[in-house]
Amino acid sequence: MVGMKDQRIGVVGLGRMGANMARRLKDCGYQVTVVFDVVDEVAAALGTEIGAKVATSLADVTAGAEVILTVVTDDAAMRGIFTADGLLQGAEGRVFVNCATVSPAVHEEVAGLCRAAGAEAIEACMASSITQAREGTLYLMVAGEESAWLRVEPMLRDLSKSLRYIGATGSAAKVKALVNMVMNINTAALAEGLGLGAAMGLDLAMLSEVFSQTGANSRVLETDGADMIAREHDCYFSAAHAAKDSGIANALAREAGVAVPLSDATEEQYRRLISLGRGELDKSAVAELTFPGRAQ
Amino acid sequence: MVGMKDQRIGVVGLGRMGANMARRLKDCGYQVTVVFDVVDEVAAALGTEIGAKVATSLADVTAGAEVILTVVTDDAAMRGIFTADGLLQGAEGRVFVNCATVSPAVHEEVAGLCRAAGAEAIEACMASSITQAREGTLYLMVAGEESAWLRVEPMLRDLSKSLRYIGATGSAAKVKALVNMVMNINTAALAEGLGLGAAMGLDLAMLSEVFSQTGANSRVLETDGADMIAREHDCYFSAAHAAKDSGIANALAREAGVAVPLSDATEEQYRRLISLGRGELDKSAVAELTFPGRAQ
Repeated sequence: MVGMKDQRIGVVGLGRMGANMARRLKDCGYQVTVVFDVVDEVAAALGTEIGAKVATSLADVTAGAEVILTVVTDDAAMRGIFTADGLLQGAEGRVFVNCATVSPAVHEEVAGLCRAAGAEAIEACMASSITQAREGTLYLMVAGEESAWLRVEPMLRDLSKSLRYIGATGSAAKVKALVNMVMNINTAALAEGLGLGAAMGLDLAMLSEVFSQTGANSRVLETDGADMIAREHDCYFSAAHAAKDSGIANALAREAGVAVPLSDATEEQYRRLISLGRGELDKSAVAELTFPGRAQ
Repeated sequence: MVGMKDQRIGVVGLGRMGANMARRLKDCGYQVTVVFDVVDEVAAALGTEIGAKVATSLADVTAGAEVILTVVTDDAAMRGIFTADGLLQGAEGRVFVNCATVSPAVHEEVAGLCRAAGAEAIEACMASSITQAREGTLYLMVAGEESAWLRVEPMLRDLSKSLRYIGATGSAAKVKALVNMVMNINTAALAEGLGLGAAMGLDLAMLSEVFSQTGANSRVLETDGADMIAREHDCYFSAAHAAKDSGIANALAREAGVAVPLSDATEEQYRRLISLGRGELDKSAVAELTFPGRAQ
């Protein structure tokens, strides 16, 4: 069997997650031979930085690598890259590792297209952010055919500190959708609690500490609480992404006939932020909607 | 100065919290001399158990104790006990320790009435449940005049493992309202996540574990997650209480002009549970509304 470090790796979608994963793989001694992004300058900059070829087309990526990571933004982008004259051209024997947070159904669709083209696809859903991508400490949930999983497992281990095989194609995306759904609700909840506390003139450091010691505690209190108070919304996970991910979960809920009024309200809050022109701020910026005087 | 254990203590409102606090004080060597409840049999049973007089009227409690704990259900009940022919009759020199979760404005109102009657009032808001009341490990937040606080501090220390003086009258109730507001939202959020996971056929033990390791983690995942899955809704904190407490927070938000759409949706979920006749189940029963096939 050929070791993974003898295989050529391509990366499609060079946002901060994709670019950092490419850097990490390069640091670990993988051959990242070809990169692609819809924005030419982004691809050119990363290609120069890590010494990879800048593909001029998606088919070029498939031609230049055995293993191809895709880290695109949404369902439409995923469908847009897996076309007959895109990544699927000459794809026989390739394995695609799809890291974007997209709908479970899109993962199933893409896996079917890959199979028909003689290739394999695997989902590797990430429940972590930019820093973890750079440091190879992602929380990864993998789903798809076991044969494909075994082919890329060593590489995924070098990208992650926690790696979990969930099951059939689409299942990792379902779990990811639920993680982000609950995380986004808890974030908007915290924004309501701290915002109302601010409106009532309470000491917010005291309030945060009480939250942390009681039933109000949550992971997002640790990650986003101080940022909400200090109004520091440098983007780790954008409000626009939060809206998209809650939207995926809410669509799954509608399909399943489950009412999710809190998640609906959360999606609406994030869409409101987008409509206020603040979609590219961090998800913690949802506090802009609840702290007095901020969202005017 | 007379030590607290030389003073007579009365307890008004003998639900599971009030009764357990009385038991705990008795265990610690305090003189719990008089108890009162609107339900005569409840008062009689506890009186017999701990050797306290069963008061036949509220004025009787004030006559029989220097320090009076009140642990009633809601704003109306608080107003109902602090009347001229109730607890306020002959109240000069008494200190009232008010433990119910009620509106901040009601605490202020009651403090004013007590002052006019020559007595003192202190809020001691509890952010914990029945077991902690029995074991003397409550999380207590205290507010009111410092003089009153110093009079009852030793007793409150014996009831709690964490005791925090927040500030002026009403402020502990504000913090408590926010704690329960965020806790209730996070609980309803978890119910949506697990319920939708169940509807999609995911392994819920796996899903809970993933939640616990990611941005979806929360205190309520620890306390309520397994109960939601197993449908174990023995009451620690009832759905009806959750509806009331979210309602207090939502009223504060309206007064402050802060929009809290998630908390509004949460209150509505708990009210729905009540209308389904399930208000006396634990707050974790909000999952009955999201797990497929449960709420029919």
